[in-house]
Amino acid sequence: MPYPVVRTRQILRYKNNELYECQDEVVNEFPLTIFLDEEEFATVVCTPEYVDDLVIGFLASEGVIRSYQDIKNLIIQEQEGFAYVELHKAHKISQQFYSKRYISSCCGKSRQNFYFYNDARTAKVMTEKNVTLTIEECFRLIRLMQEASALFQSTGGAHNAALCDRNGIVLARTDIGRHNALDKIYGFCLKNAIPVHDKIIAFSGRISSEVLLKVAKIGCEIVLSKSAPTELALQLAEDLSITAVGFIRDSSLNVYTHPERIKKP
Amino acid sequence: MPYPVVRTRQILRYKNNELYECQDEVVNEFPLTIFLDEEEFATVVCTPEYVDDLVIGFLASEGVIRSYQDIKNLIIQEQEGFAYVELHKAHKISQQFYSKRYISSCCGKSRQNFYFYNDARTAKVMTEKNVTLTIEECFRLIRLMQEASALFQSTGGAHNAALCDRNGIVLARTDIGRHNALDKIYGFCLKNAIPVHDKIIAFSGRISSEVLLKVAKIGCEIVLSKSAPTELALQLAEDLSITAVGFIRDSSLNVYTHPERIKKP
Repeated sequence: MPYPVVRTRQILRYKNNELYECQDEVVNEFPLTIFLDEEEFATVVCTPEYVDDLVIGFLASEGVIRSYQDIKNLIIQEQEGFAYVELHKAHKISQQFYSKRYISSCCGKSRQNFYFYNDARTAKVMTEKNVTLTIEECFRLIRLMQEASALFQSTGGAHNAALCDRNGIVLARTDIGRHNALDKIYGFCLKNAIPVHDKIIAFSGRISSEVLLKVAKIGCEIVLSKSAPTELALQLAEDLSITAVGFIRDSSLNVYTHPERIKKP
Repeated sequence: MPYPVVRTRQILRYKNNELYECQDEVVNEFPLTIFLDEEEFATVVCTPEYVDDLVIGFLASEGVIRSYQDIKNLIIQEQEGFAYVELHKAHKISQQFYSKRYISSCCGKSRQNFYFYNDARTAKVMTEKNVTLTIEECFRLIRLMQEASALFQSTGGAHNAALCDRNGIVLARTDIGRHNALDKIYGFCLKNAIPVHDKIIAFSGRISSEVLLKVAKIGCEIVLSKSAPTELALQLAEDLSITAVGFIRDSSLNVYTHPERIKKP
């Protein structure tokens, strides 16, 4: 790994009424520019580990690929921060629509809450009820997710995400970008054909609309978080039939949407 | 204000071993699409207050305008989430360069850490030393910033930023987007010609490279944060001569860069 995830720095610390020099670990930000069929597509700032999974998950999330097999070639130049992706077919996403506002002209309620064109294309509705959790399992999965992150514990500067089933953590990823941690999970699942229909996402950060949409794109029915949700995320969770549980702390939590997947104690 | 900042929701809460229905306040996400001379420029997801300041600060931060006077007309349609900006001169920023990676070909160390072309154009180097703070003042300003945010206290879902001088808070803003809170401050300063050379930014979130660059664009010499910095942000802080103080909590803090502006107790 040519680009380190954390760096040790000499800093000045004030503690117990004293100012002294000491060493501290600081998390790196790694700007990764993705080229798609030789054209600059996007720059993602990330924690430089599992970069190939990140690229795969990001492209799937943006609707550029539908499966791992759509990628013909993927080369990462870590030193430079470049990813070169070659696709089997020219990507269908038009620059005209990329990152463009999705302005619904009159298409019913269901897609009114999307604000980007690509999200309306790629987010899945979770009509099935494959997974249920008890309250105790919610607490346990959040605890396990936090324990899995060494990076956060040493630097305080990263977000954690975990793909779980009812037994525990299947895969945990950390990134300075909240969405990147989820894209790394998505990319891993696509690359290794991991079934997700019985899985849960546990997340350290806020449930924003972007996070909720990532969960829907990955294809999970439940999202657990230590933090607050936003109203737009909850509207999307209602529409996409996702159970959103937030503010999971010690012995209290809030079930915001689709409580039918959370079993009463 | 047609679009509310928070919404009250019926939720299911588990607390003290009981599951019960109750009301909870959830913060809204408001997608705001900015049109620049009739062309769609960007969509920012924000907390819907001080939206005009946000647009002004965002455009200045992106290098589209240099002063408030560059704007001929600004119309906000809050219900639809649209901002229409008309400029006096056609904006010089080429779509060719917008959000594009800044690849330095061989121009010395000073601009090597920028990864977007526009940042290299707009971030200022703080060569002056107009402001110094004592350790006690660092603690006090962070405390005042937190007290100023009612939104965070009720919803837990927002970031706080404050423009301060040594006496206290000049302006405090809250937003679900960490950068938006800073853009709202930047926009207010530009619109009202607030001098910033003697000011400090206090911030609730991480000092990422983007946050550090916003501070440099606003033109402040010191940034205070409750949270962690990233290594890239600290490299930029060193280059741009900004004092970065992080992990300000109760009675401890870390001075990461340019400690000459922090007075020893």
